[in-house]
Amino acid sequence: MGRRGLLIVISAPSGTGKGVLRRHLLREMPELRFCLSVTSRPPRPGEVEGVDYYFVSPEEFQRRLEAGAFVEWAEVYGNLYGTPALEIKEALERGEDVLLEKDVQGARTLREKFPDGVFIFILPPDRQALEERLRGRGTEDQENLERRLATAWEELAQLKNYDYVVVNDRVEEAVAQLRAIVTAERCRTSRIDFSHPYFQWIRRI
Amino acid sequence: MGRRGLLIVISAPSGTGKGVLRRHLLREMPELRFCLSVTSRPPRPGEVEGVDYYFVSPEEFQRRLEAGAFVEWAEVYGNLYGTPALEIKEALERGEDVLLEKDVQGARTLREKFPDGVFIFILPPDRQALEERLRGRGTEDQENLERRLATAWEELAQLKNYDYVVVNDRVEEAVAQLRAIVTAERCRTSRIDFSHPYFQWIRRI
Repeated sequence: MGRRGLLIVISAPSGTGKGVLRRHLLREMPELRFCLSVTSRPPRPGEVEGVDYYFVSPEEFQRRLEAGAFVEWAEVYGNLYGTPALEIKEALERGEDVLLEKDVQGARTLREKFPDGVFIFILPPDRQALEERLRGRGTEDQENLERRLATAWEELAQLKNYDYVVVNDRVEEAVAQLRAIVTAERCRTSRIDFSHPYFQWIRRI
Repeated sequence: MGRRGLLIVISAPSGTGKGVLRRHLLREMPELRFCLSVTSRPPRPGEVEGVDYYFVSPEEFQRRLEAGAFVEWAEVYGNLYGTPALEIKEALERGEDVLLEKDVQGARTLREKFPDGVFIFILPPDRQALEERLRGRGTEDQENLERRLATAWEELAQLKNYDYVVVNDRVEEAVAQLRAIVTAERCRTSRIDFSHPYFQWIRRI
């Protein structure tokens, strides 16, 4: 049955493991079109250009920003992050389901631009897990870590603005829930294109 | 995480195979509490008391109706069908997810009483399949069949009042979609009980 492409936004404070979930989800639902963000920050150890982000210089980011290339952008901890507009727009128009992984700030802006998007908030199993994951990343100095923790607490309070909440306790279970959300949203009556040929036989009644 | 019980209503015109889907779904999600309807009509071949319906005499149905035992009831093709109120109410209060299989008329009344219920419309793969299934049942005389077909066309027009649409083309796929809808609805932010102990650590921030 015909329908428009879904925009699915996975979001969470840093340290909830949303990147791991996203990679699992893409493996299990390879038809999802993952649109990377552009960032001006340098890659962290293990991060790969074209897999985790499009890494550009601050000057190049600024140039694209002025050219209107981003559907939303934000400065987070002194680095610039942007979501490419054209790639998402074209994929949705082709009927593809688009997956984005955004910080809480970015998700909020996207919600305004895509009110019928599917916004999913990932929660850590508990406070300790969140702190451990932020510490365990090992790429942050103590000041950065404290700042990230403080931001995380603030961001958690925004979960009520999301459509769905998934607790990242057991990865397999969390991924199964993400898959179920995508599958269910595809069945939503409000998303179905009733001009599709399938519905001819009902309308002709 | 704590949440109230879900009320899930599967509905469709006769001849879309919703009974088969319901049985598969219950096998795969045995935690769902299936609440049977009460009917005054005699069992069809193969139908079992306490499995498909509670079969009662028209007089007994009337007695229960007057006692306020039904959350909704309807006369369909001269037979009475009712949904027991107490069983559903108590299960939902215990946090159990309740599954109901209702005709389109019954579902509409339930929607008014349970606005936050999950209403799923089952569609046949095409018009021919619907006609064949109604004929294939072999329990209807020609006049009944024509009447059922006419009603089916009318009822199909109501699918826009449902939250989800599942096409019963391949049974396994349709059941997977039903499972996904239940799983996803359990993750809906609006259904989460934020007074649950899990959320203490977020609120205390």
